[in-house]
Amino acid sequence: MMQKSTARISAATLARRLGPESPAGTGPAYRQLAHRIRSAVLDGRLAVTSGLPSERDLAVGLRISRTTVAAAYSLLRDEGWLDSRRGSGSRLRLPDSRGASGASGTSGASIGLGPAGLLGYPGSTGDEIDLSVASLPAPAGLIEQLAALAVEDLPAYAAGGGYAPFGLPVLRQAIADHYSAAGLPTKADQILVTSGGQHAFTLALQELSVPGDRVMIECPTYPVALDAIRAARRIPGPVGLPGPGQIGDTTAPWDADLIAATMRQTAPRLAYLIPDFQNPTGALMDEATRRRIVDAARASNTILLVDETFRDVPFPGHPALPPRMGSFDDGQRVLTLGSLSKSVWGGLRIGWVRGAPAVINRLAAARSLADMSGPVLEQLMAAHLLADPVAVLDQQSRRMADGAALLTAELADIRPEWQVSRPQGGAFLWVALPGPFATELARAAHAVGVLITPGPRFGPDGTMESYLRLPFTEPADRLVTGVRRLSAIADRAAATAGRLSDVPGWLT
Amino acid sequence: MMQKSTARISAATLARRLGPESPAGTGPAYRQLAHRIRSAVLDGRLAVTSGLPSERDLAVGLRISRTTVAAAYSLLRDEGWLDSRRGSGSRLRLPDSRGASGASGTSGASIGLGPAGLLGYPGSTGDEIDLSVASLPAPAGLIEQLAALAVEDLPAYAAGGGYAPFGLPVLRQAIADHYSAAGLPTKADQILVTSGGQHAFTLALQELSVPGDRVMIECPTYPVALDAIRAARRIPGPVGLPGPGQIGDTTAPWDADLIAATMRQTAPRLAYLIPDFQNPTGALMDEATRRRIVDAARASNTILLVDETFRDVPFPGHPALPPRMGSFDDGQRVLTLGSLSKSVWGGLRIGWVRGAPAVINRLAAARSLADMSGPVLEQLMAAHLLADPVAVLDQQSRRMADGAALLTAELADIRPEWQVSRPQGGAFLWVALPGPFATELARAAHAVGVLITPGPRFGPDGTMESYLRLPFTEPADRLVTGVRRLSAIADRAAATAGRLSDVPGWLT
Repeated sequence: MMQKSTARISAATLARRLGPESPAGTGPAYRQLAHRIRSAVLDGRLAVTSGLPSERDLAVGLRISRTTVAAAYSLLRDEGWLDSRRGSGSRLRLPDSRGASGASGTSGASIGLGPAGLLGYPGSTGDEIDLSVASLPAPAGLIEQLAALAVEDLPAYAAGGGYAPFGLPVLRQAIADHYSAAGLPTKADQILVTSGGQHAFTLALQELSVPGDRVMIECPTYPVALDAIRAARRIPGPVGLPGPGQIGDTTAPWDADLIAATMRQTAPRLAYLIPDFQNPTGALMDEATRRRIVDAARASNTILLVDETFRDVPFPGHPALPPRMGSFDDGQRVLTLGSLSKSVWGGLRIGWVRGAPAVINRLAAARSLADMSGPVLEQLMAAHLLADPVAVLDQQSRRMADGAALLTAELADIRPEWQVSRPQGGAFLWVALPGPFATELARAAHAVGVLITPGPRFGPDGTMESYLRLPFTEPADRLVTGVRRLSAIADRAAATAGRLSDVPGWLT
Repeated sequence: MMQKSTARISAATLARRLGPESPAGTGPAYRQLAHRIRSAVLDGRLAVTSGLPSERDLAVGLRISRTTVAAAYSLLRDEGWLDSRRGSGSRLRLPDSRGASGASGTSGASIGLGPAGLLGYPGSTGDEIDLSVASLPAPAGLIEQLAALAVEDLPAYAAGGGYAPFGLPVLRQAIADHYSAAGLPTKADQILVTSGGQHAFTLALQELSVPGDRVMIECPTYPVALDAIRAARRIPGPVGLPGPGQIGDTTAPWDADLIAATMRQTAPRLAYLIPDFQNPTGALMDEATRRRIVDAARASNTILLVDETFRDVPFPGHPALPPRMGSFDDGQRVLTLGSLSKSVWGGLRIGWVRGAPAVINRLAAARSLADMSGPVLEQLMAAHLLADPVAVLDQQSRRMADGAALLTAELADIRPEWQVSRPQGGAFLWVALPGPFATELARAAHAVGVLITPGPRFGPDGTMESYLRLPFTEPADRLVTGVRRLSAIADRAAATAGRLSDVPGWLT
């Protein structure tokens, strides 16, 4: 159950993460403090294995008596939420009874949806409304048009063997030009073409780290990346993004102090970040934080895997985006992961890594062993698309924005008590439910033909039971039908989850 | 240098593998025996870590005096070719001086061509003649025609998200039907579509074994598979295929006794076999051996990864092939790997795994983490191709056969002393040179613009220096030019290699 330690957080950081005291707080002060700490863990604001400040420091930081802090820690320890060892302070943990409760709706165990829900339904009849995956339909006629253009280029390629482990030169150049045009000068030898963005991620993960290495992740983060980290036997080291109090604030939810401290103290081999319309929160990292994290990575010798999958689909009218993290890099510190799967179509399996040529060469060698090379026609289509991408990306951005507006309005109408993020791009709303019943809701939703991904899937520790990610990429009618079905079962799911989690001391 | 032990071979097997005594043999009998054993290792007929029979058994088996065997073993031990430990008999090894000789042309070290030569020349000007990769050009107009058919199907798919981690249902069914039509009844849920055959192999390798597990391989075998095994930190356990004496005999070079004994004694987790037009020898496994190996795998709890990449391109007029190994399986013992990359075109990245649905589900889960899904258009093209594959496969088979005839005739003309295999299908000749200079030849060939893969790339131990794989898939003019360039530099390469390997006792 327990992971190796993550960073010890300061009293100031902990105070910030706990948020304001609940005005409705009742009972002794120490119970209220214990409750706030537990809630922060359940919401994902605090990583499960965070080291807590000393009683003395926290008392000073919160301006309360040391006796209150000591009593709160003692209660948490008795309930199994805190691990204290002489000389090494106190660390948060999940109580064993939580894991042992088995069928509990709030245990945070996977409910078997598989990665992003894709695998649970190999024999899907198409009746389900799949709100577990974000994937826009392709623009009408686009793939056909790209195929026609690519076919014209084919004869020169079909006469050859068809292998190109780095990607076709014409596509590497087109991707490099796409970066250069956006203000980040890039040459073709800095690009490795992959079979989608996840392929780019796993290649870098496998080649640049070894089992047992620590990989810093945002919490919440992209579940498939998290699954790949665990499957590769690397250790995910979460840094929390803010919780419900700040869910509407999508411009600066990264705590640069905490991230820098975590990198300094744990020296992760890799860090996986999604600075542009973060998955699932939709947040956008500001320029100062980007710069700060690249500096911290340099100091801790960490390689940053920066996922820019959604960068190309900001909503129309959005102000200019902060510079790409790669622009703060002096060479080999940042690997940028890109893809057409999210911004254009998931059925077009074209992704890439941008990095220093020496690193690209390493990744290409690994790639060549894994699947040799990518499909030629597909790469030619992507090269044509990237030669003139603006109209297509604009069209997809508008569809994303329309979907976001529709879903936001629908939820405000039928579930005004659900707090939702206000993204300026990307494909998801991040929803804070009024209680920890996301897993139970996902389970019940399955029974009414809706697939959703509950909060615990977005972190390594089984927390975030009060959260839900809802993509807005489905056609309007299906989207509305899907959330109405969810709404219809939500109250019962909340009640069921409440009964199942009726363990003394947990949710006081 | 040393690997963990492989099987101890019997005196009868060793006698068979040593081949007949050289009629020109000179010097004392014990030196001749030592020489024959060393040559068998250098040629790859004996795995480097084979355990030798006792002196007494070998003396009986070869009908020579035990004193001669004892003296030969003693010489080999003194020269560093044999490791003897009380109670555990004698095992072959490579002498340390061999590794320590560093720049030696016969050291068997990789010369940096990278996997299959694909990576050494990312900036290839196209002037090189690449005889390191076997890849036919696509049939004229085929890819265009398939693209046109696939585009007609697109609208139904482009409206969806595009993800299908198991492969598009229409393609899974087409692949299943392809097996069923060939006599091996198969359902769609037994098929996972992958990005080519190597992707199928690495998925199975990663998912069905863990680092440190033994993977039995043929020696020689497909270099990229071997590289992937080592990159994944599995231990390749070679079983030798016969050497030069039998190079023309391409129907039964597998030693079923040795393979069964190796599986029994080492219980490898996986075994990778290429029974149909083996890469690189071109050999075809007979029915009895197939049946025997599946039985042995059942007994040792080994999963067989059977690569049928070349099965669909037997030369015209070849008699019926033995049944697929999967037809002897009772369920979960055999995973069959297939691909269109070799039989149709390398630029069409469509491969697959056929196996029990429970195993396919596991592989799909792993695949979903690694690269999510395959490209839609490409899969639709493959489905159309497999709906009526006969004309295309016949055309490619004829081109393979024509290439084989041309290359065989050309070599007989300019290098009659090179022994060549006589394959009935596949894409390669396996060439036995008149001496151990393959690595030096590859090095010199690079300088004259020809890429070839020397024997040591096909095994884990740096042996097979007297062998060379030559594909016959290049266009006729380039093929002829390539081998003429090779021939022109061969004598000098042999002389250079001879000087470099002038280490007392090695090549007496």
